[in-house]
Amino acid sequence: MRILLKVEYDGTAYAGWQRQSNGLAVQEVLEQKLSEVLHESVSVTGASRTDAGVHALGQRAHFDTQSRIPADRFPFILNTMLPPDIRITEGVQVADRFHARFLSCGKIYTYRILNRRHASALGRNQVLHVPVPLDLDRMTESVHDLVGTHDFSAFQASGGTAKSTVRTIHSCFLTRQGDLIQMTIEGNAFLYNMVRIIAGTLLDIGHGKRTEDAFRKALETGDRLSLGPTAPAHGLELTDVFYPKDALWNPEQYRWHKDPAER
Amino acid sequence: MRILLKVEYDGTAYAGWQRQSNGLAVQEVLEQKLSEVLHESVSVTGASRTDAGVHALGQRAHFDTQSRIPADRFPFILNTMLPPDIRITEGVQVADRFHARFLSCGKIYTYRILNRRHASALGRNQVLHVPVPLDLDRMTESVHDLVGTHDFSAFQASGGTAKSTVRTIHSCFLTRQGDLIQMTIEGNAFLYNMVRIIAGTLLDIGHGKRTEDAFRKALETGDRLSLGPTAPAHGLELTDVFYPKDALWNPEQYRWHKDPAER
Repeated sequence: MRILLKVEYDGTAYAGWQRQSNGLAVQEVLEQKLSEVLHESVSVTGASRTDAGVHALGQRAHFDTQSRIPADRFPFILNTMLPPDIRITEGVQVADRFHARFLSCGKIYTYRILNRRHASALGRNQVLHVPVPLDLDRMTESVHDLVGTHDFSAFQASGGTAKSTVRTIHSCFLTRQGDLIQMTIEGNAFLYNMVRIIAGTLLDIGHGKRTEDAFRKALETGDRLSLGPTAPAHGLELTDVFYPKDALWNPEQYRWHKDPAER
Repeated sequence: MRILLKVEYDGTAYAGWQRQSNGLAVQEVLEQKLSEVLHESVSVTGASRTDAGVHALGQRAHFDTQSRIPADRFPFILNTMLPPDIRITEGVQVADRFHARFLSCGKIYTYRILNRRHASALGRNQVLHVPVPLDLDRMTESVHDLVGTHDFSAFQASGGTAKSTVRTIHSCFLTRQGDLIQMTIEGNAFLYNMVRIIAGTLLDIGHGKRTEDAFRKALETGDRLSLGPTAPAHGLELTDVFYPKDALWNPEQYRWHKDPAER
């Protein structure tokens, strides 16, 4: 049977979600523990391949098992074995043809900025420290241009291999609570480094280095140079992943995203 | 001259604020770095001697120096030398007779509880995980009895050496945001482990193990056994410390707290 897990992790100590040669990945830790528990070789597929240092509150991942352990026992079992910076917060059984990545119809990411003179000890791994005051009004104005269905070809790192660069952003907004500025962005899917490039451009706009129409211009020209640098990973969190209402049990009726590079 | 620092720290890796033999203390790290910078032996006095694992957003500490470095440079200088889990967020010059601990007229502590089935990876060091649903209404009702000036003799750990156990609680309230329950308590001063005993009793009340009048009964009887266990340190944060408005420059007019065990 196929099980879908909700996974929370502090990405500080990991080389990202996806198994790779240059460091320990969250996927790898999870596969190791599942294989131990189930006495079978388990491979885990995540909804989003978050980069090194990026956090997740609501990553999703599926795996197959021959065992008959009820799905909702997996959080309890795995949480006794996993390191404390990885936690399973949900487990549900899904149809055998369900796919955590290809069936995802939406994701929310959050980028956090601490905008005050001195850095924070308590938030050091989860918030980007920006000592110079940012112009939140200009930043807020700029993000309106992102919402909608656009060709985001300018918004990807050079490593991006997506065949189509058209994505739909459902919403993008900024909030401030004291010194903490938070960007919340929801879209159907995101290109490689897209959210961090948006965050980096927002920082440029907030610093007055770029104008409020930076996003509109980049959408029109497709020019990566119209945008700011890729913002640091540790300010970013994959907050949630969505699936069509009945996709968990009737995945066949949904067209899978074809593009394997899509995140 | 005497300098007053505002200090933020993640207490996870430390044996508490105060220098001691069984582990590295925040005070010790601070004294080390200050002595290095200033080429003189520096001793630092904190407003509150937080326990091992307890965090601080707004600890205060003073020290004396022969140097003429402007007070507001100390955060910049120290933050380049300190480990990232300790940050200086303010530095001001104060009168030579100012005292960070004896002149404090109020403190705010925050205790955080994550009340959901599975633990959190991202909040693991700063929030107590309680898997069983807590009755927030009963907890909220109970804290009213704490507010005011009372003899809190039941509310201290056996190590407490305070001569007077009378304290004034200005406010104590609970808030819930999603799964996060937060207790905020403000008082003129607190006995040893007082906030963690209050938090532990609140957990008992929320679990239905103690009645809503537990605090009132303990204040009447002075019996430590009317209260719950001392809650774990990692849920607690020293949020802020207050001084009388003009105490920074005219400390002489204020009666110092006499009791050296007062925190």
